[in-house]
Amino acid sequence: MGKKKASGTADYNFDNIVAPATAVGAGAIGIIRLSGADAITIADAVFAPYRHPGKKSAKLKTSESYKLIFGKVTEDSKLIDECLAAVFRTPNSYTGENCVEFYTHASSYIMEKIQRMLLEVSSKLLKDNVISAPLRLAHAGEFTQRAFLNGKMDLAQAEAVADLIASETEASHDIAINQMRGGFSSELRNLRQSLLSLCSLIELELDFSEEDVEFADRAKLSNLLTATYVKIKDLADSFALGNVIKNGIPVAIVGAVNTGKSTLLNLMLGEERAIVSPIQGTTRDTVEDNINISGTLFRFIDTAGIRNTTETIEMMGIERTFQKLKESSVIILMLDATRETSISPALLSIAEKINPKRQQLVIVANKTDKLAKNVSSAALEKMIKDECRRIKLKPKEIIATSLKKTPEVAKAKTVSALSSIGKGFISDIQGKTYVTNLRHYQALKDAQASIERVFDGLDNNLPTDLLAQDLREATDDLGSIIGEISSQDVLNNIFANFCIGK
Amino acid sequence: MGKKKASGTADYNFDNIVAPATAVGAGAIGIIRLSGADAITIADAVFAPYRHPGKKSAKLKTSESYKLIFGKVTEDSKLIDECLAAVFRTPNSYTGENCVEFYTHASSYIMEKIQRMLLEVSSKLLKDNVISAPLRLAHAGEFTQRAFLNGKMDLAQAEAVADLIASETEASHDIAINQMRGGFSSELRNLRQSLLSLCSLIELELDFSEEDVEFADRAKLSNLLTATYVKIKDLADSFALGNVIKNGIPVAIVGAVNTGKSTLLNLMLGEERAIVSPIQGTTRDTVEDNINISGTLFRFIDTAGIRNTTETIEMMGIERTFQKLKESSVIILMLDATRETSISPALLSIAEKINPKRQQLVIVANKTDKLAKNVSSAALEKMIKDECRRIKLKPKEIIATSLKKTPEVAKAKTVSALSSIGKGFISDIQGKTYVTNLRHYQALKDAQASIERVFDGLDNNLPTDLLAQDLREATDDLGSIIGEISSQDVLNNIFANFCIGK
Repeated sequence: MGKKKASGTADYNFDNIVAPATAVGAGAIGIIRLSGADAITIADAVFAPYRHPGKKSAKLKTSESYKLIFGKVTEDSKLIDECLAAVFRTPNSYTGENCVEFYTHASSYIMEKIQRMLLEVSSKLLKDNVISAPLRLAHAGEFTQRAFLNGKMDLAQAEAVADLIASETEASHDIAINQMRGGFSSELRNLRQSLLSLCSLIELELDFSEEDVEFADRAKLSNLLTATYVKIKDLADSFALGNVIKNGIPVAIVGAVNTGKSTLLNLMLGEERAIVSPIQGTTRDTVEDNINISGTLFRFIDTAGIRNTTETIEMMGIERTFQKLKESSVIILMLDATRETSISPALLSIAEKINPKRQQLVIVANKTDKLAKNVSSAALEKMIKDECRRIKLKPKEIIATSLKKTPEVAKAKTVSALSSIGKGFISDIQGKTYVTNLRHYQALKDAQASIERVFDGLDNNLPTDLLAQDLREATDDLGSIIGEISSQDVLNNIFANFCIGK
Repeated sequence: MGKKKASGTADYNFDNIVAPATAVGAGAIGIIRLSGADAITIADAVFAPYRHPGKKSAKLKTSESYKLIFGKVTEDSKLIDECLAAVFRTPNSYTGENCVEFYTHASSYIMEKIQRMLLEVSSKLLKDNVISAPLRLAHAGEFTQRAFLNGKMDLAQAEAVADLIASETEASHDIAINQMRGGFSSELRNLRQSLLSLCSLIELELDFSEEDVEFADRAKLSNLLTATYVKIKDLADSFALGNVIKNGIPVAIVGAVNTGKSTLLNLMLGEERAIVSPIQGTTRDTVEDNINISGTLFRFIDTAGIRNTTETIEMMGIERTFQKLKESSVIILMLDATRETSISPALLSIAEKINPKRQQLVIVANKTDKLAKNVSSAALEKMIKDECRRIKLKPKEIIATSLKKTPEVAKAKTVSALSSIGKGFISDIQGKTYVTNLRHYQALKDAQASIERVFDGLDNNLPTDLLAQDLREATDDLGSIIGEISSQDVLNNIFANFCIGK
């Protein structure tokens, strides 16, 4: 199975497919997309280009590819819409098949009506043997699946299309578009090629094994394999960060009751639209409790239990949220500046729980407006800083503030701390490859495990054919990511996560 | 002020404008639309068409109109998106100005980023005097407003664009598309022409008044004017139905407590998606409590008070909902079949409240499963029918049913009754003109009132100049609908109701 027609024609579904390609809702233009061998014939049955003076009346069939044609859709001489249509001929289309796109007024009635007309007219055309396959509504991701099956892109690139469409931040966009352009795929191809070369070496030895010849220097083999293994491991390890960037850097706000955790959370989430976008409010429609700060998505881990706490025991609330704390990459520890005696135990408690290698800490000491007259915010910050140094806790930022008196200042300082953390997280995304897809991560881990078995085999002088077997498995694992090895089930699973119309 | 450049260049805003033209949400393709004299220059500053083998590298500036060009948007050599772009040159574009559309991956990040890049780059171009006007985000409806100002369509047609985009049912679509194609406008032009002819006649008399010549036969004038008046009145009267078709035929479910009103409402609304569309669920996203039955929209008047009633007084709930009943075009009266003694009073009560000229009644006798063994549903229906005849109440349908035991049957019967009512409402929409816009309705009523003053004047032998004055006002009223007479304030108000990007 090569890159072209990756899964062969046996699995290829030759139905013509149709779906809207634009989101449902208040918009000016809606796009309906058709793909399949008969797409142009079917579209011609409902769409009539307007006759232009001096030009002969055209059908889509005779019209230029990539040209927007103004015309009308009518049913029994009743006008359904005046719209544009464009034809894309195989193989120079998104799917690689014949495609037609209609650019209609974005009325839900018009979009549905035209699709229904296309479905009805195609039944007649099929019965009359004018077309060779039926038209049906496309499954989620089916356009992109066909693009993959027709060798327009490999599987990792196809999956990146869905990630790109879903990207709401610069960081997730950058990873997705690098993957879509084939950056990740070419790294995988190189790694796979290395493994294949090693395989050949080993198998050559195998062919001559009865002659007791050892072609490959096993030590040299081990060295070559190590280089490849390290690269695969690096890719697999990049998932930890890649996943966080794609889904949002998880932030947990922890602290004792009544320190202001829910106030801070509401403050951060409340003005989200303004932060997400100066142009239009988008994120909140689908995602709750995510905010975009300087191009990085932060995901506030569900702290509902904390937010509406009715807890009365005056003790650290951290115990209860220990699990959430473990899942987070950023921990905001809330302290009550007026409860001075509780500060040291709280710091100590967080120091025990935090993993400084992968977790960042921001300390917010709230209620500075209620501090005794002789205690300044600066003094409080210094006191906390000293205490942190004593117990070897290294917070990224210590913010003494009053959420009640100066919410804007408190918010700005917290945003600034998160922004700086976000920039640290993504400072070196550019040009590098990050794995963001669980399927890819698992395949890489499988390849890693296979190669580890080869190392063991080399150490224990296992026979060559067993080593070759494991190497081949590792090769297949890498191949499965870019779709050189894939079953129809796997493909269906992958594309089911797409939106309809892509 | 003629049709072309209707409001003159004084009011025309020469800024370049940009906006997304597709809805925000899960979609494959997003469209960004640019309009203005410098649109192509600005687009060229962010978009680079791919070089095709055998073809010279193209800028949008040198590319064919209406051609989809594949290329990329980059910022400091970082790829933002690979997308299509098309150029539409003045005057052959939607707005009549130079336009560019980008067809991008529908990521909210990409759509915002490209708009921001266009805004930034245009500031530089403006500073360097490469372009003559700034680029800014478009106001709601601004693209269509420019289409109107450039004489691409009249005002009534422009307003129909918004109605067409919003149309969710066949009925509202048909009215909007007829208006957009100019059916309504040409009727108005004819009426206006008639009034202008009458004006000329009267003013001719005025010019020669000192010679005491009476050119116009006043009786003949009155006859001519009557014909026009009747047509204007018919148009104004069509608003009652036009408005109902556009916004949904209002339905009120009334009846005593515990007759099953809320059960019926939930039954009707619960499976709405299935009724609205076999293709995709759209309506429920934005509109609550509307259902589309056989191409007609029914709007269930907010009966929240009824739905969760905690009322305990065993009496007709109708009193409380009298106002809602008055607003509705369809009334569903719920009866409890087991409370036989309450049926006659309920029927009598509704007979007093209903206006048979403009309101349809459907009677649903619920709980037939609890009827005494010797009473059949048919007998119950006959009893209600007889009682209705006795008090001269003419229900469209009487349905004896059990919402609890046979909800599907009950629902099917109610849907069927509403469908038949809906078909009656819209049976003759085709080809006829219905006024659906409050502004148009008010202008028509104003024209009516002006003409009535002319009739009074004729009756009372008022001087010709007063008659001419009123006639001219009526002419202007009609002109204001199609935008031949309009102020910037009126225009801004009208287009503010559009979505951004149209």
